[in-house]
Amino acid sequence: MMPLEKAFCSISEAMRSHHPLVHHITNYVTAGFCADAALAIGASPMMADEEGEMPAISQLSDALVLNLGTMNERTYGAMKKALVGTAACGRPILLDPVGVMSSSFRFDAARTLLQTGAITVIKGNSAEGKALLSWQGEGGKGVDSLSDDHPERIAKALACKFHCTAAVTGATDAVSDGTVTYLAHNGTAYLGRITGAGCMTGTLMAAALGVYPESPLYAALWGLTVMNTGAELAEKDVPGPGTFRAHLMDAISQHEGHRLYNLFKGGPAK
Amino acid sequence: MMPLEKAFCSISEAMRSHHPLVHHITNYVTAGFCADAALAIGASPMMADEEGEMPAISQLSDALVLNLGTMNERTYGAMKKALVGTAACGRPILLDPVGVMSSSFRFDAARTLLQTGAITVIKGNSAEGKALLSWQGEGGKGVDSLSDDHPERIAKALACKFHCTAAVTGATDAVSDGTVTYLAHNGTAYLGRITGAGCMTGTLMAAALGVYPESPLYAALWGLTVMNTGAELAEKDVPGPGTFRAHLMDAISQHEGHRLYNLFKGGPAK
Amino acid sequence: MMPLEKAFCSISEAMRSHHPLVHHITNYVTAGFCADAALAIGASPMMADEEGEMPAISQLSDALVLNLGTMNERTYGAMKKALVGTAACGRPILLDPVGVMSSSFRFDAARTLLQTGAITVIKGNSAEGKALLSWQGEGGKGVDSLSDDHPERIAKALACKFHCTAAVTGATDAVSDGTVTYLAHNGTAYLGRITGAGCMTGTLMAAALGVYPESPLYAALWGLTVMNTGAELAEKDVPGPGTFRAHLMDAISQHEGHRLYNLFKGGPAK
Repeated sequence: MMPLEKAFCSISEAMRSHHPLVHHITNYVTAGFCADAALAIGASPMMADEEGEMPAISQLSDALVLNLGTMNERTYGAMKKALVGTAACGRPILLDPVGVMSSSFRFDAARTLLQTGAITVIKGNSAEGKALLSWQGEGGKGVDSLSDDHPERIAKALACKFHCTAAVTGATDAVSDGTVTYLAHNGTAYLGRITGAGCMTGTLMAAALGVYPESPLYAALWGLTVMNTGAELAEKDVPGPGTFRAHLMDAISQHEGHRLYNLFKGGPAK
Repeated sequence: MMPLEKAFCSISEAMRSHHPLVHHITNYVTAGFCADAALAIGASPMMADEEGEMPAISQLSDALVLNLGTMNERTYGAMKKALVGTAACGRPILLDPVGVMSSSFRFDAARTLLQTGAITVIKGNSAEGKALLSWQGEGGKGVDSLSDDHPERIAKALACKFHCTAAVTGATDAVSDGTVTYLAHNGTAYLGRITGAGCMTGTLMAAALGVYPESPLYAALWGLTVMNTGAELAEKDVPGPGTFRAHLMDAISQHEGHRLYNLFKGGPAK
Repeated sequence: MMPLEKAFCSISEAMRSHHPLVHHITNYVTAGFCADAALAIGASPMMADEEGEMPAISQLSDALVLNLGTMNERTYGAMKKALVGTAACGRPILLDPVGVMSSSFRFDAARTLLQTGAITVIKGNSAEGKALLSWQGEGGKGVDSLSDDHPERIAKALACKFHCTAAVTGATDAVSDGTVTYLAHNGTAYLGRITGAGCMTGTLMAAALGVYPESPLYAALWGLTVMNTGAELAEKDVPGPGTFRAHLMDAISQHEGHRLYNLFKGGPAK
């Protein structure tokens, strides 16, 4: 069995036997959808963002998601505290820098969180990835030396710059640990027609990190593949995004390692 | 082609080509449903409520929704800041005064926001509309000179008092810019059996304002008609509100200007 | 007709004729799902958590839910204020001590709220119930003298300790007012695969308390039975949790007192 297939099988099995507790500090728009996604795959979601209880919550959790979607000064304080507590326990942390190019508040927060060196995986789209690579102040668009057409270059650059694993999502997805970079071609345009597809992908990756911390690269690919192959199954014969959302939750609940590997379209980038 | 039909066609087309960014400062109960509704019609939702990032966010957005649903002192500060920033950019602003009759905190906030003169559209039910027209302090019911049976009179009075366009929703809806007032008779009782039908209608109106600022009247009618004709389609053969919600999202995603105009039941009030 | 059947009939009828207003101070993860559940059964949800408007909101509401899911210092202040206002109006209050065993912040809050003597019903799982019965500080597991296998003992002990009615949920549910204790055996494992099943059950119980305050025991059993028999109906032929959620809302919307009583599996504990 190939290493990736072996990893997919291990993660799918461990998800249902270990029910990893994934602590989220995330936005109130997609929190319910992310919690549903976690439960659908067999993980256990916890959302808590009172700074005072972070040390206790961090001790319980198997992985942490920091999602900047509707961050405010209060929840940013909780994020910093949770990051310290989770890192001290040796648990993986995923950063989803939602809209990091839209304000200096978000950018400064993302940079501060990344500079701790405690982030295990960054997951964002190419606009977010490029903003983190090159920032020219509020309102700026960032240098455009890295094209959207090359997510693998953005992912690798992020991984090298921040000494972590980086997943860049889009029509083609890329995941890199700085040394090895994978391209992945699963998914469907329907994912862009419901709220929280990106946030839920972050949740799935973090859950996988919780049970398979030995390879953030494979854990991130597992999360991407569950969501994107689930979407491919879910879009069959659906009349619109409302039905698609329900079918997507049905589909991701049926993840199975060998099947995911067989459905996976992609491989190491050259 | 009649002016209303022309407007409906322009809005439906522009929605899918321009993907207007609709900034929401809204309640955490229906935020996910509103974001789904925005994506379903082709708009792009953004929820952000940290006061410090409002100037940057306001520069990016095509329209702003201020929804008082779960407002607190913190988010009220962000609303005032976003209103100033959005108005300075010449972008339209929709106010949804949820529960404004229920506390002086909400009423004072709504009055303060309206007194800036920057609100483009008020959207509320008749109880909310009447509270804004005549307030007798906390716990009071307001003078009842305007009957629920005459939404067109409430809408016109709101429009005249606050120099904006007003949409009053109910079994019969009314939209007025103070000069012209429309009645609209689409919709179904099922909309009252799911959370956020009113909030989502505000989102659809704001998205329409973002691509068709030249007529807040027609933009508001487009939003109402997408939601209410969508609900008529969605309720066919549904066993209950859970399935109805999914079908509603499916239905509104299929908006098309000519068809909306043909399904529209209503016209100028006499 | 047996007293329980009579109560179920009264509650189901009153729900659709009185539309009790259920004020929630609850978490942002499941707030939308709880509001949907309230509307599905015929109740009217209100979520509001600005401390300054609590007195006004409390005067309007028929029942109050305090859910600790994503509580923070700000919303805890609102909870204390709402508790006082609601109790002063003689209205019932339900406490859902979500994750109370996970941090001292939550535990101290729950204890403070319970010590007012104003809580009508506590609803939690056995881990939460046991934490409230015996606490050994942060990180502690609590004395384990009460086994998970005996929810009726946990429920009765909670009811006696806090002079209220207690509902303990699990594979078997138990509800006790300290004198009479019921066991209930409805439900399905699917409820554990969607977010907010427990929170929604709290909403249903509180709505029932709002129209049937004379028996918190029967009101809590009604809420449990609507949710659990609804889940039994909803899980038939569903492919996964996404479809299950929609069907669950459909099913609970069709509550009817006699039918609920006939489907109810359980009775007084010996």
